[in-house]
Amino acid sequence: MTFTTPIRDMRFILDHAAGFGALEQSGAYPELSEDLTAAILEEMGKFCDGVVAPLNETSDHNGAALENGVVRTSPGFKEAYKQYVEAGWSSLAFPEEAGGQGLPSTLAVALVDALNGACMSFAIGTTLTTGAVKAILPAATDEQKALYLEKMVSGEWTGTMNLTEPQAGSDLSAIRTKAEPVGDGRYKISGQKIFITYGDHDMTDNIVHLVLARLPDAPAGTAGISMFIVPKIHVKEDGALGERNDVQCIKLEEKMGLHGSPTCVMSYGDKGECYGTLLGEENKGLKNMFVMMNAARLDVGMQGVGVAERAYQRALAYAQDRKQGRGAGVKSGEMVAIYEHPDVRRMLYSMKALVEASRAVCYANAVAYDLARHAPDEKTRAEAKAMEELLTPISKAWSTDRANDVTSLGVQVHGGMGYVEETGAAQHMRDARIAAIYEGTNGIQAMDLVGRKLQGDGGAAAKKFIAEIKNEAKVLKAAKREELHHVGERLLAAADALHASTDWLLEKAQENPEHALAGATPYLKQFGNVAGGYYLSKAAIAAALEIHENRDPAYHETKIAMARFFADNYLTEAIGLTDAIMAGAGGVARLDPDLLSA
Amino acid sequence: MTFTTPIRDMRFILDHAAGFGALEQSGAYPELSEDLTAAILEEMGKFCDGVVAPLNETSDHNGAALENGVVRTSPGFKEAYKQYVEAGWSSLAFPEEAGGQGLPSTLAVALVDALNGACMSFAIGTTLTTGAVKAILPAATDEQKALYLEKMVSGEWTGTMNLTEPQAGSDLSAIRTKAEPVGDGRYKISGQKIFITYGDHDMTDNIVHLVLARLPDAPAGTAGISMFIVPKIHVKEDGALGERNDVQCIKLEEKMGLHGSPTCVMSYGDKGECYGTLLGEENKGLKNMFVMMNAARLDVGMQGVGVAERAYQRALAYAQDRKQGRGAGVKSGEMVAIYEHPDVRRMLYSMKALVEASRAVCYANAVAYDLARHAPDEKTRAEAKAMEELLTPISKAWSTDRANDVTSLGVQVHGGMGYVEETGAAQHMRDARIAAIYEGTNGIQAMDLVGRKLQGDGGAAAKKFIAEIKNEAKVLKAAKREELHHVGERLLAAADALHASTDWLLEKAQENPEHALAGATPYLKQFGNVAGGYYLSKAAIAAALEIHENRDPAYHETKIAMARFFADNYLTEAIGLTDAIMAGAGGVARLDPDLLSA
Repeated sequence: MTFTTPIRDMRFILDHAAGFGALEQSGAYPELSEDLTAAILEEMGKFCDGVVAPLNETSDHNGAALENGVVRTSPGFKEAYKQYVEAGWSSLAFPEEAGGQGLPSTLAVALVDALNGACMSFAIGTTLTTGAVKAILPAATDEQKALYLEKMVSGEWTGTMNLTEPQAGSDLSAIRTKAEPVGDGRYKISGQKIFITYGDHDMTDNIVHLVLARLPDAPAGTAGISMFIVPKIHVKEDGALGERNDVQCIKLEEKMGLHGSPTCVMSYGDKGECYGTLLGEENKGLKNMFVMMNAARLDVGMQGVGVAERAYQRALAYAQDRKQGRGAGVKSGEMVAIYEHPDVRRMLYSMKALVEASRAVCYANAVAYDLARHAPDEKTRAEAKAMEELLTPISKAWSTDRANDVTSLGVQVHGGMGYVEETGAAQHMRDARIAAIYEGTNGIQAMDLVGRKLQGDGGAAAKKFIAEIKNEAKVLKAAKREELHHVGERLLAAADALHASTDWLLEKAQENPEHALAGATPYLKQFGNVAGGYYLSKAAIAAALEIHENRDPAYHETKIAMARFFADNYLTEAIGLTDAIMAGAGGVARLDPDLLSA
Repeated sequence: MTFTTPIRDMRFILDHAAGFGALEQSGAYPELSEDLTAAILEEMGKFCDGVVAPLNETSDHNGAALENGVVRTSPGFKEAYKQYVEAGWSSLAFPEEAGGQGLPSTLAVALVDALNGACMSFAIGTTLTTGAVKAILPAATDEQKALYLEKMVSGEWTGTMNLTEPQAGSDLSAIRTKAEPVGDGRYKISGQKIFITYGDHDMTDNIVHLVLARLPDAPAGTAGISMFIVPKIHVKEDGALGERNDVQCIKLEEKMGLHGSPTCVMSYGDKGECYGTLLGEENKGLKNMFVMMNAARLDVGMQGVGVAERAYQRALAYAQDRKQGRGAGVKSGEMVAIYEHPDVRRMLYSMKALVEASRAVCYANAVAYDLARHAPDEKTRAEAKAMEELLTPISKAWSTDRANDVTSLGVQVHGGMGYVEETGAAQHMRDARIAAIYEGTNGIQAMDLVGRKLQGDGGAAAKKFIAEIKNEAKVLKAAKREELHHVGERLLAAADALHASTDWLLEKAQENPEHALAGATPYLKQFGNVAGGYYLSKAAIAAALEIHENRDPAYHETKIAMARFFADNYLTEAIGLTDAIMAGAGGVARLDPDLLSA
């Protein structure tokens, strides 16, 4: 088995760190029950482990390829995708009126976790589609819904997001793709898009592209961008497939990793015959995009968690198998498994603690996402919405940065074998590396955190969360168990540091916005470390209760050990970031770049 | 130009951080002068920038290949290597009596820096050869010297180190390759070695393998390992090449990066006709290895610095070229170069500060290496030797860990383009990744630091160095310039933390060696951050003096800015590592691995 969905750990974090129990009990999902959740996780595990995970290695060596103008996916992808659709995984969390199953998005997010652990390059195609559905749902006309929605919800057709152009990456204001109305409600689309994930493939009969473009005479900048639905194959009124639209993949990028995921250069209207329809209002294309953005960013955070989990499992297995050296002071006798060496365990515990902490942050974010939309009372919805907004950039950036750390440690645990491609450890590192970049680079996430999120509400949501963390720290400090007390002390100190940074940023950003921009990245890291430590602390308290009740104490002891490891290594790191944050604009004051290059 | 040897920065660090001036003035190298150093650095730059750097990208796409039992190197390597030999770069720092130029190793180390910036996969072949020479020099018989030495010193023939076998990686005690005396002074060698860098290639007429193997009835473990000289082509007494020896490359590893460097599986004695001669004493093979180890480890640290420098140069150029977004609060107008965004500058300054700090650590290590061997008085030699021993694991591990950070940041600065192979940013990250692994993994370096180095002299060398750092911090604190004072405060706090960790480790390791092993990795990082901050602080003081004298103040201001950036971001990080170190054995106490995997 190359990967095993960590169902037990996922469930433990859902229940004891992320507050999934509160969701189950909120009445937001009347049909939800512990048993149903268990059944879904189990089926998810079977599908991911048995069907998807075996594709991962092949997809690296034998990735997507452009052949005669058509993208051929990696061997096995088409068949696995068919099973994914047939089992109903795509529609899990969509509303029943749209053909979905009406379950919490949190479970769909857990699915994203498991799918990415199984095979990141397969998984990303599925989340692009669910993201596109989220953009279409609130904005589409009834006719558009009739034509596209059901088949996208089911996954029978996939969706794409076409944002980037060579001159318009992080800054979409520079988009040049054109859309001209032809008078019958349709628009002629022309232009080139790059970095389009699953822009073409052979897994489904049709692909529905969401394309950002400019109408004639649209205002300059982001206020003049509209979104269009552009199908690969035109759909007739009766739902039957019609003619091929004038859109095609003209190049696949050669990437560092994620070879199974086709990254397409898409050309629209080469023959002047590419037609689409407007989604939502004219010039409000970014609004549609932002509707799906929070969910999409959380999905990317989850990619980081998934691939990190896989890297961890592989490294742990290798460390138990590989024999080198002996214990401290032992000169002869059999070599021991490298797991027995403290420094190797340090690497593995770092991987495990970071995987669990980032999973907990993302799951808590998912629970907030669900409560924000489905909690019965408005106050809960509003509070959850604020929490969702706050956590989203952290889930995205912190989890993917940590995935880079974890997958690199995975290579290191393997020693020289990690650098050789045949072990697969290197693939995880290469695959993971994109997640910190796309769907808004992690720098953009950090600026979103200190800007829109922190300054947007004057720090209210952040301070409420920090107060909650401090309360939890005090609970831990009062515990009789020495480890819990110890974790509580470190959590309190780290939360105090985060509190001070937060106040500093809020105050200084008033003077000069560059103060906040300069410290954004270390602030996001500090916040992520504290949040991760908080959720692991909650898990540790729950574990202590389980131990007290004598329910599988050995397993639950590992949860306390991970909270402690995280506290000693990452909560203390958080405190050290304060100086980097408070150095402010002066800390990265502009120097003449010509003097910085010899 | 894809790479420019940073001659000015190299010289600045040599003179103002690493103490090269002390070496020039020590009398150890009577012919050495400022002008000679300048001339050598300039020629070095011309060769590396003009001849070697253009090979780098091709070597990634069109790497070494095994064709009909022979390794063909990447296009251009053979010609560049010929120029390298003809220009005398190989012999720079070897003694004149061995055919060398008798210059300081520090200059050879600067060459390693520049060569690795130009093309890491080309450079490593050259350092393997100089490493082999260092192992041969003190141990070889006159006959062996006559046969091999001159041609290896000149680089006309290359050398290899054959240590690793599948079951013997970090733990060489498990070596199984056999050597049987045939009675005429020769030994029959049989066995397989893996991960042999430049084990075969087409750049030279001959290759001299140094092979670790066991004599019949040799004691078990490391006490039974001998070293043998095994030429690819036998050399006749008159120096002419004779018959092919029975040794060959039977496989090249497919690696994550460094494709230009052939990583060979070497088979010795397939036909029972592989002959070599004993180098040094029977069963003392590891002693020979350790002779070259310090230098080899420093060379690997330098690889990290070189490839990080290249990644930095590329990222800086991209950030000046790529336009996205506008300044804080600016809504319209032209897009600006991303260098203008504080968060992008944070990434670039991180890269620059880490490159300069790691370069300074390695150069200081090189100066200590030279003084330890060539200082006129014994006291200086002894003190320098202690410093060389202490700094070596830090140079190797800290510089290569930082190279992983820097090259990953280089990808991030490029955004999506960084993940696409055509920009080359990804290659630097993939290439750099090996340096933390080979020549003793960074975990092994950390254990060497807390074990042989720290406990070996009861902490004497470390404490002397820490006292020196504290003195420097006090000088900075007393400075009138606010930035210098600020850096001094942070340096002192970090040095205090390092002092406390050092005392803790020395004390606790007595109780239980696992305390030291458990904290070794964070301790090495703490030490590296403090040492890096120290050398940049020295550079900042020197820069302030230059500014005072009105010598190119703009350039020297960047040195003060880098010291400040390092202090705010990495000296403070050092303090946070104390808890991870002092968590001790309990912090990584053994957990049942089966409970750590779902």
